[in-house]
Amino acid sequence: MKKNNKTLKVRFLGGLGEIGKNMTALEYGKDILVIDAGVAFPTEAMPGIDLVIPDTSFLVQNKDRVRGVVLTHGHEDHIGGLPFLLKDVNAPVYGTNLALALAESKMRENRINNYNFNCVKPGSVVKFGCFSVEFIHVNHSIPGAVALAITTPVGVVFHSGDFKVDLTPVNGEIMDITRISEIGKKGVLLLMCESTNVERPGYTLSESIVGETLDRLFQENDKRRLIIATFASNVSRLQQILNLAAKYKRKVAFLGRSMEKVTEAAAKIGELTIPENTIVELDRQKNIPDKDLCIVSTGSQGEPMSALTRMAADDIKNVKIGSNDTIIISASPIPGNEKMIYSVINSLYKKGAEVVYETLEKIHVSGHACQEELKILHSLVKPKFFIPVHGEYRHLKKHVKLAKSLGMKESSMLIAEIGSTIELTSKSMKFGESFQAGSRLVDGLNIDDSELMVRDRKNLAEEGVIFVVCCLSAESAELLQEPIIVCKGVTLTDEQKEEMKRIVSNTVKKNDVKSMGDKSELRGAIRRAFKNYVFKRTKGNPMVLPVITEV
Amino acid sequence: MKKNNKTLKVRFLGGLGEIGKNMTALEYGKDILVIDAGVAFPTEAMPGIDLVIPDTSFLVQNKDRVRGVVLTHGHEDHIGGLPFLLKDVNAPVYGTNLALALAESKMRENRINNYNFNCVKPGSVVKFGCFSVEFIHVNHSIPGAVALAITTPVGVVFHSGDFKVDLTPVNGEIMDITRISEIGKKGVLLLMCESTNVERPGYTLSESIVGETLDRLFQENDKRRLIIATFASNVSRLQQILNLAAKYKRKVAFLGRSMEKVTEAAAKIGELTIPENTIVELDRQKNIPDKDLCIVSTGSQGEPMSALTRMAADDIKNVKIGSNDTIIISASPIPGNEKMIYSVINSLYKKGAEVVYETLEKIHVSGHACQEELKILHSLVKPKFFIPVHGEYRHLKKHVKLAKSLGMKESSMLIAEIGSTIELTSKSMKFGESFQAGSRLVDGLNIDDSELMVRDRKNLAEEGVIFVVCCLSAESAELLQEPIIVCKGVTLTDEQKEEMKRIVSNTVKKNDVKSMGDKSELRGAIRRAFKNYVFKRTKGNPMVLPVITEV
Repeated sequence: MKKNNKTLKVRFLGGLGEIGKNMTALEYGKDILVIDAGVAFPTEAMPGIDLVIPDTSFLVQNKDRVRGVVLTHGHEDHIGGLPFLLKDVNAPVYGTNLALALAESKMRENRINNYNFNCVKPGSVVKFGCFSVEFIHVNHSIPGAVALAITTPVGVVFHSGDFKVDLTPVNGEIMDITRISEIGKKGVLLLMCESTNVERPGYTLSESIVGETLDRLFQENDKRRLIIATFASNVSRLQQILNLAAKYKRKVAFLGRSMEKVTEAAAKIGELTIPENTIVELDRQKNIPDKDLCIVSTGSQGEPMSALTRMAADDIKNVKIGSNDTIIISASPIPGNEKMIYSVINSLYKKGAEVVYETLEKIHVSGHACQEELKILHSLVKPKFFIPVHGEYRHLKKHVKLAKSLGMKESSMLIAEIGSTIELTSKSMKFGESFQAGSRLVDGLNIDDSELMVRDRKNLAEEGVIFVVCCLSAESAELLQEPIIVCKGVTLTDEQKEEMKRIVSNTVKKNDVKSMGDKSELRGAIRRAFKNYVFKRTKGNPMVLPVITEV
Repeated sequence: MKKNNKTLKVRFLGGLGEIGKNMTALEYGKDILVIDAGVAFPTEAMPGIDLVIPDTSFLVQNKDRVRGVVLTHGHEDHIGGLPFLLKDVNAPVYGTNLALALAESKMRENRINNYNFNCVKPGSVVKFGCFSVEFIHVNHSIPGAVALAITTPVGVVFHSGDFKVDLTPVNGEIMDITRISEIGKKGVLLLMCESTNVERPGYTLSESIVGETLDRLFQENDKRRLIIATFASNVSRLQQILNLAAKYKRKVAFLGRSMEKVTEAAAKIGELTIPENTIVELDRQKNIPDKDLCIVSTGSQGEPMSALTRMAADDIKNVKIGSNDTIIISASPIPGNEKMIYSVINSLYKKGAEVVYETLEKIHVSGHACQEELKILHSLVKPKFFIPVHGEYRHLKKHVKLAKSLGMKESSMLIAEIGSTIELTSKSMKFGESFQAGSRLVDGLNIDDSELMVRDRKNLAEEGVIFVVCCLSAESAELLQEPIIVCKGVTLTDEQKEEMKRIVSNTVKKNDVKSMGDKSELRGAIRRAFKNYVFKRTKGNPMVLPVITEV
């Protein structure tokens, strides 16, 4: 036990497909520090699910030991799970300005009033029990992103957060390479580094490149209305658009709930500078000539209820898409969203608009480091041990290869999975016992731990459902009327339904229903007879749910 | 009427998202010629649907006028709908060797024996009523692909089929540019050209490039087992793999149903040359050292039941993936399949294997022409009119732009939609009346025209379903027992279920059930009460299906 207390434990909590992204914890002795509290987005295999949050059982069981939560930046996959965590674990939260502003609006949405948020600036150091965390400025697709240098009793842990090296950033400064190299020089025990773009050679393009493309597009479209769809949280992108609008004397209208919310929050804390007399309300827009207007909207992923999708469907008042519109989609499709966004693009074209998207122009850059930038971080930090994080297994594997090419020994690296504990001393790193971790699914107000509901829903969607209601006499166990068959998601002819009723009646007759204790045996017999018939006729395998009433 | 008979009508039949791909028809006077009879693959919005076939009502209504079906090549999206068409329309089918061999196996699967298939060679000319069709050799990702030069009473229609210009093809020859330029010189009325890669600048890489990468990978992995996943229909790719296996003295095992089927069919007609003593059965494989074996399998898209996915899940006898395996995925993810294939890649990595895929190596090339190749075809054919085909609306729009950049007038081009008729004379092109066309969904043996079933299934998947069974006395209209509640895809606590039973009982009591003619009014009342309650408690909106029995 005593020995165990001298190890630092890195615990990998939430995540869906990606490891070390939504939530990670460090544990030493009695102290636990949580890094990020994000959500994942449901896959197609989770119909009807709104959100996927980390299973925080471990933290809830040890809530008195949780000294705090540190946020690396304000993206959903790093802060979206805060309301769910803070409901059960009342720990102080530390993050930069914008991350906290966005997190606060999440707390309000979830009607949580009792929380302890603390704003930090890059460069500051905060103590959490035996941990001391230094926040270090990095570049990313949202302002206020930080890496973390965490001094622990066994050595320094450097966590990259999400980062890129932008030598010509739009807001703020270049990543604090000087400070990182100082920390590296003093000695780092463990590097945890993000892996999103580890498959991409070279460097990530600077955010300024997008500004150059946008500037040209503003010029080329000087007679037309401009509509730009992008991520609301990409405040630097919004800043560039606002600056260009001012330069070319266009008014800007923000469209979409998250666009309105984020720009308001960012402007309030000074992260977004809105040129005077630039913003207009959409309701006043009627009077503005096309050439003087630029609409900035959500929906860059083709999300069904987003502003861009609704514009494409003629569903937004005062905005009718036509041949004098140029729509710029300043984003990449997130894998899985391709079909949605292309369907919106097709609709926009059909309305006569011009559409500019990533395949055609340099209209978006990634917020994540490519191979050469990752090499820079590794070379500066020079860690003793390395754990790749923030990626699917294939990314982590590649990241280990990249570190190896820089001279790191394979025995100094481990690839975790959700639920892994990795134990470190000042001299060693190995897997500890795994623990309960994973995903919980949020559907409306319902948080469901089991996968059963989702499996049911998938089955319903694939094959449909047939209900069979049999009303039996309690006395004679005979059918009091013909069975009722209701089906959804299955196509049956009237003839087939009649035949099914006969099959059910025969099954009831054939079985000695009276001697059956409960009716589950009869239900089983009906289900089998039914499934055989349906499969023979339609090759389908719907869910069959017999209900037996006795009166 | 008489005037109408002198126009050539181009009719756009099947397709899902893409226009002018699965099926097109030419009509002049009493003659109809069908170009291709393909299928589309269901989207995520169509749970449980196996196939999407063209709505051929127009052809069925005019079946006596259908002079024939010509196939441009043997891919599913061009031949997969033949069995469904030929069931209703008994027309002769013309295509090249491999296209017919693959189509024949489809007919056998669908147990259709009565068909009239005619094998043509590139260069041959076949008459269909007033139409005369010349088949012209082009390059594509399957052997035997042809373009069509169709002489009609109003002029020549040139249909590109699916094509690329491969100057170093693996099987056969370079696209017949000479013949195409002769045809162009004589004068072409209408060009219909595919648009798949119109957004990609430059030229499509040659199939030979893949051979070079594979050769290097064979060398680099000379001590390891190789597993290559690719499209079964890419016979040139298979030929290159077989040649390399012979060169490096490896045995080849084909894995997966379509891989076995296609290689057998292609070898039989001489499209695939299998080096002597190369093929082994997987059952004999135990005795073959890793370094002497190359498995060629299906599953390059991560399809759930495919050989590669099953290997990754340890579900194929005699193949246990381990650290001495290198898996090469010689394909691109088709949009929408990204998550599936990456999940398979992650599983393979977790088993210790190496995985090589498109992001990392030049291991796949497209079968479709990029911008410069499209320009070549336009320049050779020099048509009077142009209709872009085989693409989403955004592709067709870009293709019109590309043609414009080559000097074509916008008034000489039209973009069709599914159900469009375009009418041509020797001097004009315009839209005619649209007609019934679109998609039909195949689910097992069931072909369903309506979208209702799919909508039901989507609702079931999103929200789940609750059945409520009330057994009433026919006499007093009172409940004979407490209501039965069965739910699937919805999570309800026992408490909630009890409360719901009370709500149903109260609804029955409150309504004057006896005076209600049929029970639909009561069902409506129960449904409303139920939905209100569920929404309040869970924010969910499940399907509620009340069943009322009276005894």
